[in-house]
This record gives sequence, structure tokens and C-alpha cells, in this order.
Amino acid sequence: MLTLASDFGTPYPAAMRAAILRRTDARIVDVAHDFPRQDVRTAAFWLCEVLPYFPPAIHCVVIDPGVGSDRAAITVRAGEHVLVGPDNGLLLPAARALESSPAPTAGAGLRGLDPVDDRQTDGAEGAAIECFEIVVEDPESATFHGRDVFAPAAAAIHETGVERVDDCPFLEPTDDYVDLSFPEPKLQADAATGEVLVVDGFGNAVTNVPGEWLTERCSLRGRNETVQVEGTAVPAADHYEAVSAGQRLVTVGSHGNVELAVNRGQGSEAFGVAVGDAVELRVD
Amino acid sequence: MLTLASDFGTPYPAAMRAAILRRTDARIVDVAHDFPRQDVRTAAFWLCEVLPYFPPAIHCVVIDPGVGSDRAAITVRAGEHVLVGPDNGLLLPAARALESSPAPTAGAGLRGLDPVDDRQTDGAEGAAIECFEIVVEDPESATFHGRDVFAPAAAAIHETGVERVDDCPFLEPTDDYVDLSFPEPKLQADAATGEVLVVDGFGNAVTNVPGEWLTERCSLRGRNETVQVEGTAVPAADHYEAVSAGQRLVTVGSHGNVELAVNRGQGSEAFGVAVGDAVELRVD
Amino acid sequence: MLTLASDFGTPYPAAMRAAILRRTDARIVDVAHDFPRQDVRTAAFWLCEVLPYFPPAIHCVVIDPGVGSDRAAITVRAGEHVLVGPDNGLLLPAARALESSPAPTAGAGLRGLDPVDDRQTDGAEGAAIECFEIVVEDPESATFHGRDVFAPAAAAIHETGVERVDDCPFLEPTDDYVDLSFPEPKLQADAATGEVLVVDGFGNAVTNVPGEWLTERCSLRGRNETVQVEGTAVPAADHYEAVSAGQRLVTVGSHGNVELAVNRGQGSEAFGVAVGDAVELRVD
Repeated sequence: MLTLASDFGTPYPAAMRAAILRRTDARIVDVAHDFPRQDVRTAAFWLCEVLPYFPPAIHCVVIDPGVGSDRAAITVRAGEHVLVGPDNGLLLPAARALESSPAPTAGAGLRGLDPVDDRQTDGAEGAAIECFEIVVEDPESATFHGRDVFAPAAAAIHETGVERVDDCPFLEPTDDYVDLSFPEPKLQADAATGEVLVVDGFGNAVTNVPGEWLTERCSLRGRNETVQVEGTAVPAADHYEAVSAGQRLVTVGSHGNVELAVNRGQGSEAFGVAVGDAVELRVD
Repeated sequence: MLTLASDFGTPYPAAMRAAILRRTDARIVDVAHDFPRQDVRTAAFWLCEVLPYFPPAIHCVVIDPGVGSDRAAITVRAGEHVLVGPDNGLLLPAARALESSPAPTAGAGLRGLDPVDDRQTDGAEGAAIECFEIVVEDPESATFHGRDVFAPAAAAIHETGVERVDDCPFLEPTDDYVDLSFPEPKLQADAATGEVLVVDGFGNAVTNVPGEWLTERCSLRGRNETVQVEGTAVPAADHYEAVSAGQRLVTVGSHGNVELAVNRGQGSEAFGVAVGDAVELRVD
Repeated sequence: MLTLASDFGTPYPAAMRAAILRRTDARIVDVAHDFPRQDVRTAAFWLCEVLPYFPPAIHCVVIDPGVGSDRAAITVRAGEHVLVGPDNGLLLPAARALESSPAPTAGAGLRGLDPVDDRQTDGAEGAAIECFEIVVEDPESATFHGRDVFAPAAAAIHETGVERVDDCPFLEPTDDYVDLSFPEPKLQADAATGEVLVVDGFGNAVTNVPGEWLTERCSLRGRNETVQVEGTAVPAADHYEAVSAGQRLVTVGSHGNVELAVNRGQGSEAFGVAVGDAVELRVD
């Protein structure tokens, strides 16, 4: 299985699908192609959230403002997954998420439904991520490596197999790659200072404050719980409909982070926050 | 085969695909993920129009403003199809459309091409739709049941099989579910009063007036036929190009309903109508 | 394999997928469904660029402002590919691109990776494109031939096989079809006068001036090369990051044409050009 993610919009992803299909008849699954243009950090956040739910796969990911410059192209092996993309930090947070155990799994709450976890956990440090440079001798184009470098590399890696990725003639082990990490929140007993990492399509402002910080201080199931956001009391609840339509709330999103939301509305607008803005939360 | 539909935009549907692929390697087909946000009725309309063209499948459909509240999660069996989604009325119109016979089929007008109809019609009342509650003991998240409840439920139902859906341990038969129906138009010999159900991406305003009401009164193939819309004569024709670019017309859309359109333009704007607005048609 | 392309947005493409899946379980690959509405020329350009990267396939393509009028429906065989769509010129440029040899291939620049070319090249003129009219006796709808004519036709052609396309009872050979070609640029030793063919989603304005005209005059790898665009010197380079963020450049895009771009910005805005505008380039 191969997955594809990019900021290419349309119709460029079709050329990536085509280039892959020339080399393999494996299943291709789209993650998204409308990530914010050339915004490596936002895409890295979402890949971190979404890719770990997949079964083992080759993930071809292209948010690549430096295409055609001397930035390298890399491949990262993380457990039974492989990521392929530009060497700009994009792949690393997801690689760490794909390598850690246990894998997240969905559906565990359904009565009588067995959980699924196909992630092998030998618990050894040897399972750490491995990085390879993709050796490109002469790319066809300097502006579309998605089609000319990353897609064919991902297809060839798929055909070679994750365990034998070292056999790919265009892969060269390396320890020299660009990393990326998200800013750390400042967590205290009665206050947390974080920042908005992304705003999703519903307008929810997702912060870097871990949901546990909030759930250890509020049940989120009470009717009158509040959190101070920048000095104003806001209801805290575990789902959007706990407040009336149009009303603000603080909740923990499906990604596990604290988010600022509005029931049936735009949290980022109502709280007046954008990506990168600081957010101070306080409980009494 | 599983189909997916939601108002999730991106990249949340990828997490649903991932959760399904953890449990089955069945084909996944996207219906749409950009239905108007949290607009149950519009999505219900489109599902009604589109799903009956599919061969037997499990349809996982999530427009779910009440996620995390005490609204139930349900499964509806309709003939050889199964729908999975929130208990807010979303699934019912499509379920009725999937259960009725004969199934719509496409391509019947091509010379020498055999029609396809794989819908079993025993004609018995016993073929009516059956509803089940999805018993969720402890969902991982209160904000993303698409990933944590509906996707794994749909995958598990697929693996169990439509005929043996009762064997799924998380399904409990129920007669207590939310229904939804579209408003009925008022049809008379020389006038019809309906309302706009949806506006499609081309700007066509689709009403609830059945196409037959119009085609029984106009051939739609004449060159000078008109219908009075809110008192103004408008050309009536069976296709958009029957009028000049930018000109208004009344036609019958592919869904079989009367629609207000503009050739190469926006019908809803030109007629000044939005979803829910009343529309009066009159023929002389 | 079938590919789908249209300007239908959503959810209409799902009905096309459904109609195909009623008739075949072949792989379906989306090219794009958000081509500019009813803009035959822009879609024809992109199909020309993208489809040749695919392995042999049936391509069902619907940009169809004349749906329901007396425009014909056609099928074009081009080498091992088949195109299906309205007779408005949309298919012809891509058909010619699919028939010419050698096929483009991606990944040739990766060290040690074998190129792939599955296009049969007998070099004979007999490989020229062949056109067929799709005989429609009575389409179900006059407004949605994507679902009712093109999708079932494409599925039936897939099942019959490209080599035996003549066996499809609804296909009738014809030499009478609408063609479409892109405007030719005026190329001179020190100047080229072309026009903007399309603006892509990144805002790059793609002209009809062939990249070779530029690369024969500039290395595109120098640090101080410039081209006069409408009388103003603009840096010329082979990739976007060769200039600072927000700065204009002239480059050769992945399609092989000269394009007017801005690093991390909108070329069409910065150069003040739109589709159809003339562009004069001059080298010293």
C-alpha cells in the first residue's frame, strides 16, 4: 500500500499516481492534496496525527518549497512503514509517531469488536528510525520532483519491500537530515501557555497543550466547568454540542490536544487566534 | 466495497480510510467529503441521488453535528446495501432509495449495451429497511466518531457480510431512530409550489417539484416553451445549451427534479433563491 | 484501469464511479474533478500533460458545456489508450500525446532505477488515432451524460478491451469530429511572443513558449541570467528557490513550457497576466 500527501491541489497529484502505476499495481490511498501551500509544519502535524492509523505502508509526502534547490530527497524507515519526501523536516515527526508503540487503533470502544494492532513491538532500541538519501543523478524536471523523484522512488521501494529497502540502488544511508519538532508548551499546576499549531477545516484552533493537562484538571463531563482562556472563562467540555450553537468551548480534539472551538462555528475566529499565536489557559 | 461520505474536508477522511484499511482490504470509494458542513438535509438529498447507482456496498456516512452528545450511532440494512452513520436522519432517505426497485442504472440508452440491475426484488414487504443501534462502550474520542466508531464499524460489517449483519456483536436491532423526509411540494393542474432543496456546485437550484409534473405539461424539446417562475416567463428546456450563455431556464436535472438554472451560469443567483426558499411555477 | 476527469466538483463524480462499478471491478483513478467549469481548453491542456504518464488505460473525461444538445459523444483510440468524452475537442490533444513515442516516464534520474516504457512503438503511421461516435439512442438524462453515457461507455469499453474496441455495439467509426489545438507561439532568434495557456493552482502562468526556446538561450543555472518580460528584466532560473521568496522569475515548468512564476507566490498576479494574455520574452 502507498499513501500520497501533498500541497499540489490539482491536477498534479494525478501525475504522481500515474508515475506510481507505471511501476506497481499496489493500492494507492490519498491522505490529502490540499495541505496549506508550502507550509511544512502544518503538514507535518497532520501526518503525525493521521499516518499512524494506517496499516504498514509506503507514504509519499511532498510539501517542497525548495524543489530544485540543493535540498536532498530522503527516505525514512520507521518500523514497518517507510516515508519518502524532501529533506526539510516534513517526515520526521510522523516517522517518530509511526515507530512508537503501541499503534493507535480505532474501534476499540465498539462492543465485542477486537482491537487491531499489527505494529511489531520488539521494544528494542534497534527499532529506531533509519534515514536514507535518495540519490538523484539527473531529475527530469527541477520543479516537479513529486512526479519525477518521489513517486517513482516510493513505487520502487514498495516493489523492493520495506525489509529490503537497503537494496534499492538509489538509497544511501545517512545520518545527516533536517529535523523538525513542534514548540513545547509551558505546563504548570494551574496554568498552561502554549501556541496554536494548526487551524482545521472546521475552524478549530488546535494548540500544543496536551489534552491530559486539561483532563487531569477537569472532567469535561460536568455542566459548569470552565477554563480561563486569556483571562476569560470559557466552558470546558468533551464534545461540541455540550454548548449551544455559536458558543465557544475548550475541548480535547481527536488528536489529543487542547483545542479552542465553537459549536457549529469557527473557533479560530471567535477566539481571535491564528497559527503561531500564544494561548494561555488557566484553571482555578 | 465500502463508500465514504462526510463533511470532513481534509485531512480527516484519511484517518477514516486508515481505520478501515486496518480491518479490511476491500475497495474504498469516496462519495464526497465536502458536503456543506453539518448540513444533514443537503447530504441526505445527495446520498439519495447517488448511492442507488452503486452496486451492493457498505456506505459509511458522517455528517454529525451532534458527535459526542447522546445521539446514537446506527446501521441501516436496505436490500443488499448497508448504511452506517449517526442517528440524525441522515441515512434514512438513502436507505429507502436503496431498497426500492428497480435500481436505477446508467447506460441503458447506449445502442446494444445491456442494462445492469443487480438489485434483488422479491417484491415482499420483508425487504423493508432494518435498523440497528451501534453499541459504543467507550469511544476513543468524543469528537471524531468518523474514525473511532463509524469507520471501524463499517469495516467490521463488511467483513461479517451484509446477510449476517446481525452477527456483529456491536449491533442491536432497534425501531427507535430519527427519520428525515423532504418537504412535499403542492402540485396542482396549472401550478406547483415547492421549495429549493439544494444548490449544486454549478449553481443549479434543485427544487422538490418532481420532473414529471413539468414534463407532463411541456415537451421541453420545443423552442418556445416557457414556465412562469414567480410570475415571470422563463424558457423551459431539457438541456442547458437550449438557451444562450447567461440566460435563465427551467429544466429537469439528472436527479429527476425541476431545477432553476442558467446556461454556463449560476441559477441560484439569477433567480435570487437559496436553500429553503419557496418557488412557484405556473404553466398556462 | 480507468481514469476519470471532469469539472463536476462534488458529488456528481461519485455517480460516475458508481455507474462504472456496476459494470466492472477495474481500478478507477481520479485525475481531477475540479477543472475550471466548462473550460474545454484548460482541461485539454492538463490532460495532455498528465495522461501520458499513465500506463495503458481507458480515460473518461467530461467537460461538457453542450450536454444534451446535438453535440456527439466520442471515443478515441490512441495507441494502447482509449479516451471517452464529448465531441468538443477536449480529447484530441491528449490523444495525440498518448499516441506519440516514446512515452514520458518518471524516475529516470534515480540512480540505478530502470526506466519504464510500456508504450508500443511500431513507428508506423498506422498507429495514428482512431475516432468512434458513441451511438446514444435514448439517454436517461439530458443533463448528466457523465453518469448516463460516458461512464457506462468507458466501463463497457474496458470490459471489451482496447484491441477489440470495434466490437462495442455502440461505437461507430467516424472521421468527423471536433478538433482543438493550442495557439502557436511566434519564435525568433532573440524574442518569443506567446500567450498564457493556463494558470495552475500555485499561480504559475504557463505559456505556450516551449522550454527549449529558453534553454537554448540560457543555462538557467547561472546566478545572473535574466530574460526581458514585456520589457523588464526578470531572473531566469531552473527552480523557484533560485530567487528570494516573493521574487519573480521565468522558469521552465514540469510541462516543458516557459512559465512566469514567483517563489512562494502567485506568478499570474505579479506579472499581471491571465489566461489568453500575450507575453513577449526577449533575450539579449
